[in-house]
Order: sequence, then structure tokens, then C-alpha cells
Amino acid sequence: MTTMTDPYTSRVSAIPQVLERPHPVVWGTSTTPDVAVFAERGYLQQDHALSTESVENCLAEIDRLQNDPKVRGDARIVREEGTSAVRSIFDIVEFSDIVRNAVAESGAEDIAREILGSEVYIYQSRLNYKPGFHGGAFYWHSDFETWHAEDGMRHPRAVSASIALTRNETYNGPLMIMPGTHRSFVQCAGATPEDYYRESLVTTAPRVGAPAENIIADMAETHGIDVLTGAAGSMTVFDCNALHASGGNISPLPRANIFVVFNSVDNPIDRPFSGSVPRPSFLAKHPPATGKAAVETSTAAEIGATRQGRNRR
Amino acid sequence: MTTMTDPYTSRVSAIPQVLERPHPVVWGTSTTPDVAVFAERGYLQQDHALSTESVENCLAEIDRLQNDPKVRGDARIVREEGTSAVRSIFDIVEFSDIVRNAVAESGAEDIAREILGSEVYIYQSRLNYKPGFHGGAFYWHSDFETWHAEDGMRHPRAVSASIALTRNETYNGPLMIMPGTHRSFVQCAGATPEDYYRESLVTTAPRVGAPAENIIADMAETHGIDVLTGAAGSMTVFDCNALHASGGNISPLPRANIFVVFNSVDNPIDRPFSGSVPRPSFLAKHPPATGKAAVETSTAAEIGATRQGRNRR
Repeated sequence: MTTMTDPYTSRVSAIPQVLERPHPVVWGTSTTPDVAVFAERGYLQQDHALSTESVENCLAEIDRLQNDPKVRGDARIVREEGTSAVRSIFDIVEFSDIVRNAVAESGAEDIAREILGSEVYIYQSRLNYKPGFHGGAFYWHSDFETWHAEDGMRHPRAVSASIALTRNETYNGPLMIMPGTHRSFVQCAGATPEDYYRESLVTTAPRVGAPAENIIADMAETHGIDVLTGAAGSMTVFDCNALHASGGNISPLPRANIFVVFNSVDNPIDRPFSGSVPRPSFLAKHPPATGKAAVETSTAAEIGATRQGRNRR
Repeated sequence: MTTMTDPYTSRVSAIPQVLERPHPVVWGTSTTPDVAVFAERGYLQQDHALSTESVENCLAEIDRLQNDPKVRGDARIVREEGTSAVRSIFDIVEFSDIVRNAVAESGAEDIAREILGSEVYIYQSRLNYKPGFHGGAFYWHSDFETWHAEDGMRHPRAVSASIALTRNETYNGPLMIMPGTHRSFVQCAGATPEDYYRESLVTTAPRVGAPAENIIADMAETHGIDVLTGAAGSMTVFDCNALHASGGNISPLPRANIFVVFNSVDNPIDRPFSGSVPRPSFLAKHPPATGKAAVETSTAAEIGATRQGRNRR
């Protein structure tokens, strides 16, 4: 008799543990220096992923979307807690041809395919905006922990690309990663409340899906913290299971980035492993039914149509 | 007829302006490289101001004082907004022989004397503690703006020494300074509420005594932002009128530092220039009556007695 045990059990009622990740980080056969760095540290950085012109066009899109009456009240527009300031715009590659084209220009998809060893599709896309003076923090977390527990992503076979639309300085709330933590799975404590995503998208102090402080402290002691700075147009691609965070921003310099998650088409989205109701599709899209990456085989218009179709599932 | 105009008028009801500082930054004749850097950038940094042993002794003092029932309820112990966590302990050199000796060891007083071109005395001392995970920010401000408006410090002839008791990394809320801003005086808008210091010591979003956001943005554009990192035991000495801030801390690494302000004995403390009631002496001590620095001429025990005497004024 064989018993299946989920190697990424989380949202536990017992004291959370740090488990070893049984699955690979690099699923492909590439041995480029970039991929070697990614395997070792859980991320890679590239300068000049976007041209200055594309960066400017994307920033203009943010302005346009922030004030577009058509998207007012849309659940995919997340605002800062207690204010009307936009914090995230989900499905950004569907909202905006300009942003979708910028993602294509960045080369992120090729990198994702190389690392994940298969065709890929966009699991989630969003635009993050952290205003100057009052930008809120994103607390330490592993994306995969949430995607597995709340969305049903089966294995850590996904990567995120963060494409900078503004300078990322040490002082304006840049991405911080604990390099090496992608090789461990950090369990989190607590049952997942119903519709928790509504709260989790805006809070800076998550109640569930956040590692215990003693574990974060141990991981920082063991692995250190890398603060990822870069010019506008630079890109960071990081493993879905790396512990990361970003601090608040009291500097005058806003921080904006496009965030795109590529999942392997061979990494199914099951029922949420925490037993909760699946989150909306703008947070977690399923692989295309054909098993072939839509982004590779479709024109821009077709992609839009395909994604709309997926959204209605 | 001569009319005296305060060149550092602040807490204005009109639109606040950026004024030129009519007084020198370096009041002495020293031309050492350190002093030249200070004149140019508004701060200087020194490694190894404290020995490892002194750092450890000071950290043990924080632990002791945080839990000392004798100081519970003391107005000089400031806690994080809404929690019991200690944020600042004022008069720290009076509370603790160990910290007072550490300040003497640091050499900060000699540097202050060199820059200010006179004997000096301790205008204010405190221990700042920014815990890991939840440390609050200190918003952009000039210390002198507050000391002039709320305490009556006549001229910007004072320097602060921040002595690190923990590593200051870019990610745990280190001191940030806009280099060069010490040569301008940034007016702030708004009348000073009664007993405002009680609020101002704990809030991360001050209502008064904070420059307007457009001015902060202009100053950052012109001067940039230096993020001051350093090992435990390192020291930063900075001008009382430099615009500075420190961000929140979501890293596990706490940040603790001793903060000591040296004022020139020739820089009188008048009535508060904003017309408010003077703040308590633990925030703003007057020069010794003799015009001679107590710290230079007394033994440790005598200093304690002298300061106690000043406190009772």
C-alpha cells in the first residue's frame, strides 16, 4: 500500500517546521552562469531588460489605469490599507497591451522556460506600486507556500520576474531575498480563514501564510539577506519558494515594478492544499488545457481572448 | 533702528520655504579630513568608536533597563506606539554609568568640540531601540528645527553622535541623511500643539516639525540620500540641521544605538521660538551656568550630580 504525503504541508496546527524541498530548483538542463547563480542563490538579476522607452510607456500606463473609471471597483485593483492609493493591479498583462509587450521584451519567459525545463504560462501578473513617503511593507514569505496552500499549485516549479519601472535603491523598499532559502520549505501555522486573500493582499502584517519569527530569524542568521537594487528596466527572476520581503518606503522615490509569475505547463493546479476555497483566477491561473504555452503560440489578441476564457472558468 | 529677525523662523502659517543657513557648519579652525567631510556632507563616520566589550555591556544595560521596575512609568522611557516595547530611553547617560563611559570612550565629545569651536555639554542623550520585525520609522526631519522651535536652541551649533550597538545594515532601518541639506534651513508648517512632544516622540508620522513632501522630494533630487551602514561600535557624527530619517525594520535584526547631542556652551537655550511651553529638560538641557563643560571638568560621579541638579531646574 502506498500513502501519498504532501511534502509541502503548511497551515499546520502543530509547531511549524522547516522541511527539505524534495523537488529540484532547476528543472531544465541549462548550465549557463545565470542559471547556476539562480540554483545557488534562488534568484538572478539582469540589467537593461527593458528599454527606457518601454519603462516610460509602462509608467504612463500606471497613471492611466489608476485614474481609469472603467476599472474602479474592480477586485483586481488593490489599494493601500485605508487609502485610495493603488498598491497592486492584478492581471496587468490583460489590462494593458503595453505592459504585456514589455514582459515579452524582457526575456523573462525564455529564462523561465530554461529554469523550469518545459513550456510555461503566466500564472499571475500584477503591477506593484509603492508610493513615496508612505509605501507599506510586504512581510517575509514564500510565494509557493501560499500558492500551494491557497491555490493548489502542486510543486515549486514556477518562477517570478520582477521588472523594475523605477530605480530600486536600498532606501525605497526594494526586494529583499534570503539567498538559499528556496531549498527549504518553511511551514506556516494556522488555518486559512475564508476569503483570506482579500485581507492578505492589503495587509503588511499577515496573520497566516507568514513564517514564525523564530524561523525567519534562524534563516536570516544562516543565509543572510540580499537587498536587490537596480536601475529602472532591470529585472530579477526568483524562485517561487525563496523567502523574500520588501520594507516600507519613507523616501520620496516611489517604487513600481511589473511582477509576472511563470508556471510550468506540467505543474498542475490542484485543489488548495490547505482545504480552503480556491482564490480567484486573477491570482492563480491554470495551465492551458493543451499543455502548450499560450504565450508562445498565440498572437497578442489571441492571448487576450484565451486568458479571458480562462478567467471565466 | 535695528529689527532682530529670527533666521530660523518655522512652524509658519504661510507656505514653508527653504532658507539659507546664515551660520557656519564648522565653528572651529580644524581642517582635518574628517572635519572637511563633515563640512561638505553634514556628517562623518568612524569605525571602532567602541570596543566589542563596551558594545556588549551597553546591550546588557538595555536589557536591564527595559525590565527595571524602578523606571517603569518614567516619562523618559518612550515605548512603541500601542505596545510596551521600548523605543527610546532619554537621559541614558544619567541612567547608566556603563553608557556614560561608553560615550566617553567613543571620542564623540572631542569631535564635537573640534567642529563647534568651543567647549560642549550634553544637550540630550538617549538610547534608541528599533526591534526586529516591527520597528517603526522616524520620518524626515531636521533636529535643529525642533530644538529651535520647541526648546529655544538659538543657533545650529550642535552635533549629534549616533553610536551603533548593533550592525546597521541597509535593511534594518539605518540612519539616512540627505548630504548637504545641513546648509539649508527647511521651514515647517503649522502651529505647535501643547505638549506636542508626547506625541512626537512616538509617532512615525509627525503632524508638525516635518518638512512638506514637495520640499523633501526637491531636497532628495538635489542632494540624494546616503544610507549609513556600519558595524556595531561604529559611530556617525552629524550636524543638527541635516535632514535625516530612518525607515521601518521588518528584518529580524534589531537596531540599537546611543544617541548623544553635544551643544556648544556658547549656544544659549532661549525661550522656544515657536512660542510653545519649553519641553522637559530630559529633551533639552541648558548650558552649565559657568559656561564651562561639565563633562570635561568633572569625574563621573560629579557629572551625575551636576546633571541631576540641572534636571531639577
